[in-house]
Amino acid sequence: MIIITKPDVSEEQIQHIIERIGEYGLKAEISRGIHRVVIGVIGPEEVIREKPLGAIPGVESVNPVEKTYKLVSYEFRGMCQPVKIGNVPVGENKVHIMAGPCSVESQDQITSIAKIVKTAGATILRGGAYKPRTSPYSFQGLGEDGLKMLAEAREETGLPVITEIMDTRQLEVIEKYADCLQIGARNMQNFSLLKEVGRSRLPVMLKRGMSATIKDVLMSAEYILSEGNFNVMLCERGIRTFETYTRNTLDLNAVPIFKKETHLPVVVDPTHGVGLREHVAAMAIASVAAGADALMLEVHNCPELAKSDGEQALLPDEFTDLLQRIRTVAQAIGRQ
Amino acid sequence: MIIITKPDVSEEQIQHIIERIGEYGLKAEISRGIHRVVIGVIGPEEVIREKPLGAIPGVESVNPVEKTYKLVSYEFRGMCQPVKIGNVPVGENKVHIMAGPCSVESQDQITSIAKIVKTAGATILRGGAYKPRTSPYSFQGLGEDGLKMLAEAREETGLPVITEIMDTRQLEVIEKYADCLQIGARNMQNFSLLKEVGRSRLPVMLKRGMSATIKDVLMSAEYILSEGNFNVMLCERGIRTFETYTRNTLDLNAVPIFKKETHLPVVVDPTHGVGLREHVAAMAIASVAAGADALMLEVHNCPELAKSDGEQALLPDEFTDLLQRIRTVAQAIGRQ
Amino acid sequence: MIIITKPDVSEEQIQHIIERIGEYGLKAEISRGIHRVVIGVIGPEEVIREKPLGAIPGVESVNPVEKTYKLVSYEFRGMCQPVKIGNVPVGENKVHIMAGPCSVESQDQITSIAKIVKTAGATILRGGAYKPRTSPYSFQGLGEDGLKMLAEAREETGLPVITEIMDTRQLEVIEKYADCLQIGARNMQNFSLLKEVGRSRLPVMLKRGMSATIKDVLMSAEYILSEGNFNVMLCERGIRTFETYTRNTLDLNAVPIFKKETHLPVVVDPTHGVGLREHVAAMAIASVAAGADALMLEVHNCPELAKSDGEQALLPDEFTDLLQRIRTVAQAIGRQ
Amino acid sequence: MIIITKPDVSEEQIQHIIERIGEYGLKAEISRGIHRVVIGVIGPEEVIREKPLGAIPGVESVNPVEKTYKLVSYEFRGMCQPVKIGNVPVGENKVHIMAGPCSVESQDQITSIAKIVKTAGATILRGGAYKPRTSPYSFQGLGEDGLKMLAEAREETGLPVITEIMDTRQLEVIEKYADCLQIGARNMQNFSLLKEVGRSRLPVMLKRGMSATIKDVLMSAEYILSEGNFNVMLCERGIRTFETYTRNTLDLNAVPIFKKETHLPVVVDPTHGVGLREHVAAMAIASVAAGADALMLEVHNCPELAKSDGEQALLPDEFTDLLQRIRTVAQAIGRQ
Repeated sequence: MIIITKPDVSEEQIQHIIERIGEYGLKAEISRGIHRVVIGVIGPEEVIREKPLGAIPGVESVNPVEKTYKLVSYEFRGMCQPVKIGNVPVGENKVHIMAGPCSVESQDQITSIAKIVKTAGATILRGGAYKPRTSPYSFQGLGEDGLKMLAEAREETGLPVITEIMDTRQLEVIEKYADCLQIGARNMQNFSLLKEVGRSRLPVMLKRGMSATIKDVLMSAEYILSEGNFNVMLCERGIRTFETYTRNTLDLNAVPIFKKETHLPVVVDPTHGVGLREHVAAMAIASVAAGADALMLEVHNCPELAKSDGEQALLPDEFTDLLQRIRTVAQAIGRQ
Repeated sequence: MIIITKPDVSEEQIQHIIERIGEYGLKAEISRGIHRVVIGVIGPEEVIREKPLGAIPGVESVNPVEKTYKLVSYEFRGMCQPVKIGNVPVGENKVHIMAGPCSVESQDQITSIAKIVKTAGATILRGGAYKPRTSPYSFQGLGEDGLKMLAEAREETGLPVITEIMDTRQLEVIEKYADCLQIGARNMQNFSLLKEVGRSRLPVMLKRGMSATIKDVLMSAEYILSEGNFNVMLCERGIRTFETYTRNTLDLNAVPIFKKETHLPVVVDPTHGVGLREHVAAMAIASVAAGADALMLEVHNCPELAKSDGEQALLPDEFTDLLQRIRTVAQAIGRQ
Repeated sequence: MIIITKPDVSEEQIQHIIERIGEYGLKAEISRGIHRVVIGVIGPEEVIREKPLGAIPGVESVNPVEKTYKLVSYEFRGMCQPVKIGNVPVGENKVHIMAGPCSVESQDQITSIAKIVKTAGATILRGGAYKPRTSPYSFQGLGEDGLKMLAEAREETGLPVITEIMDTRQLEVIEKYADCLQIGARNMQNFSLLKEVGRSRLPVMLKRGMSATIKDVLMSAEYILSEGNFNVMLCERGIRTFETYTRNTLDLNAVPIFKKETHLPVVVDPTHGVGLREHVAAMAIASVAAGADALMLEVHNCPELAKSDGEQALLPDEFTDLLQRIRTVAQAIGRQ
Repeated sequence: MIIITKPDVSEEQIQHIIERIGEYGLKAEISRGIHRVVIGVIGPEEVIREKPLGAIPGVESVNPVEKTYKLVSYEFRGMCQPVKIGNVPVGENKVHIMAGPCSVESQDQITSIAKIVKTAGATILRGGAYKPRTSPYSFQGLGEDGLKMLAEAREETGLPVITEIMDTRQLEVIEKYADCLQIGARNMQNFSLLKEVGRSRLPVMLKRGMSATIKDVLMSAEYILSEGNFNVMLCERGIRTFETYTRNTLDLNAVPIFKKETHLPVVVDPTHGVGLREHVAAMAIASVAAGADALMLEVHNCPELAKSDGEQALLPDEFTDLLQRIRTVAQAIGRQ
């Protein structure tokens, strides 16, 4: 921690700052510049990270030196650690595809789409049973019935299942049916939920919130790991910016940065990231080129009748074609 | 709903769009422009609002005519409806002040601050017992013990209490001790929580999310009202922008817009909105001038030892001085 | 300047960093933390501010201690320095109103509006002769003819005139007719233009760019002062955010911050800041309460026929009414 | 154009709206919904696009049906039109690389870097002679001397030269030495400059402004084409968002959208888009995968001594390695 004082700081204030640092069991090193005094705090930074040093009179700014996340950091493991969804390891050389409809709508729908995406090359099935919708009047998902349909589709295809959890009270029932929990963008800082899934035996895919900085994402992941669940994947799905042509702004910069800063596998969701069906393919390919370990893609056999997000779902043919193109690009960058 | 077609739409596609509209029991009116066809959909818009009309081939855009919120709209009531916190009515002529520390830290702390803010003119006591913190390693609040301390401070001062709820499972215990629930910015689209507080007998203050549009806020409020709880207040507390000098960008534009669009009282939280103690006063006064019905302000008797947000809390003297200035400006705009 | 190294920095790299600092004539002070080394650079910071220290191997981050602006800083003057537009001093106790149409459209239009706004209490006339329009097909302003009409309106009313300059080549002609130059938001980082107006004898109002941080604004102002023109006012006019209900997000946080950081008078333009006529008044009043020295307001006697920005211009009656309310609030905060 | 009225619109107001439309020579078609009236305006939209219809009493919103850009639109040409820089055609199957230092610093520097990038496979040389710098105290470029050095480097390598123009008055001199003009992000809405380069015989690369929407970019390009210069390329270089880890947020969504909406070649500048040397390569590869026609990359042989942007420039070896990887990915997507 480095404390920088105001230009007009008094000697008395400096002494007061040094005392405070001493009370926390740390040591202060003083450098006197031309206008300001710089106080280096020597000792483990976590001891004072939470302390409101900025509120001490005479302090202009407080600058951390160490990173605030620990368990998620690349250094903690020294390598990228794959996460297993069912028996599918995400984070190894092979780029995996999670695909399926936005919402589970019926047994027929989910099973037939599961078969289509499996044939095309997907290895994980996605589908929402609990749906976070902006409007209370929109379709809210089939709940436990939807989960059962997902489990049935897994029976028929062998694809492990990822589905969203919205509420701490849903954990028990979702654990019965699914292979991986998804935390949606709107719940990325629902800390009660993060702690709860941190105690689950299932892996977790954490989606970046619409206004979450990269550091915010890492701190939310840290919540899950700090409860004991290390099977966490990070998912870039677009952030909210001033641009209105697209639904969100897919921030592919986050991909190499997540890979560098953490040992967690990185997933990209280009479907929500651009939100326009005709541009999903280009962004999916770019995501793989940027280094994603897996993609999440929405596929629907009849988008114009979908109960949610029909505008952005790929048609089966488009999806099959896209997977072939992804295969070529993955190979070009030395992946499968 | 107005559907605009692509320039190269075929006659067959137009017929298909009209059929779909017919299937939903609505009528289509066709206007042929020079390049595009405009299809007006006549009938109740809510019937097709969720339908993925944009996924129908040939459709370029789908434009709603009616507003998507209903119960929160000004028209629903035709007047601003005050909300009672304990026996304090927010939304009448008098501008109310909710004040207190960020977190409840001890009985002494909360009681002494409660007395200070009451003497200065505050009418509602705030204090967090469950704290949403970015880091799992930060102080997470005293939980039920904190709630008991708040209730005790109410006993001693008569000030009703507002406190944050983070999890559906906390509702029962908070209802025992508090007078008003607060939904924090990070939970503004935690729809499970919104539904749950929609069934509470307590009023709710809904804080705007960091990347929530004005319309998003109204839709989240609609969730609460649609479950039966009409005692909702909206709170502007700053949005996330590119600006880094301040913690958030207080969007005072939202104040007159919330007042115009809804019948709900509007609160502003300048403490989080700017995040720098020395500028809280200017923004508090501007908030009242913009038309806020109440302010939420953080006050601490020793910010440099506060367990959270010490950097932005006002000192007791600053707070007392600010309330006098607010009184003058409130009177200048015809309020108390 | 404080340099923080990477955790895996080598002793050799540290020596290389120290040498580079020495080459620039400065001294390095080393503090060794648990994981990283902190190198304080002692000596005048401007010497190395531009140097790409972050590109030296082993460096993780480079953190300035001093501010990068000098002439605009409050400390440079130690007081707020009023700027005179004609004989109207902006930045003293009185809150001034700059008002007029978006564009000068005809002699009749500008003269009649000038008379209206003067009667209502405005002390400066605004009007655009060169118009920065998003589309090349939109009205681009009357050019020198418009300037002549402004000068004629000044003759008739005595109000000094502020008008926008878009191009270095326009300076000479605008200096002939106007009393104050306006740099628009889109040209805030047109550095050639900033240097040019820095050599003008006229005062300059610099509008904040749509994506300009507070620090960016100060650096652009520094360009003007560094060429010798100290008669600069800063203008907050709304920034671009994700919000679409309003045209821009008026960032009133900027007002107390500009006042604290600089000696320059601060103007707010609520018309562009919210962009909706019915909400301009609330934001104008809030701007004064936040501490603005002057407001810029668009007024038009027939907005539905205006050649630009008709949607946001106030009607004469609305304007007159607003000025009375502003007067009351200004007095409440101890201003005129 | 579709006009939607307020719910409480009067019959008289509707008549007034229809009259106004008639005055502009257009026809109104009325559809009466449950709460609002929808008025379709039949006739060429450009006639009324600028008119402040939203200022007419009773109007709630005015919604364009047609696009506001014409010459840049894909439909105008029906194909992507390559732009020639010297004799290098950008926008054909081959992906081109524009590379060089941020600033021209000396003849030696520019010539040696030009040779390096040519050997690695670059086909166009970049280098700044006029530099837009945030601070007036930073290196401002070598001006005409820098241009001469660029021309000399072209002599020695055969690489055509692209360089930035900041001011209308620089056009003549730059035209003497360079092969392509670059409009920087900060001047994207410097409309005087856009018009001026619209009359140049040189091609223009227009960089997206930091807060420019996709539509804003297209309108700025339209300015250039409307003056007669059709040799325009669009360049995505990152937008300003709340994220602070990276310098900007590279918006690759813009690439397929620019390709779809216009006939102009699309360039991506990953160097500024992420701003961190170690992540430039990943984003460069992703840009090609997303469909870019060319990349602009900063290369420096001694970044730690560079006069600007050393932190983000690639080293010669990194650049050579990157170009090999780009070649493989380009081939994988069917390009050179």
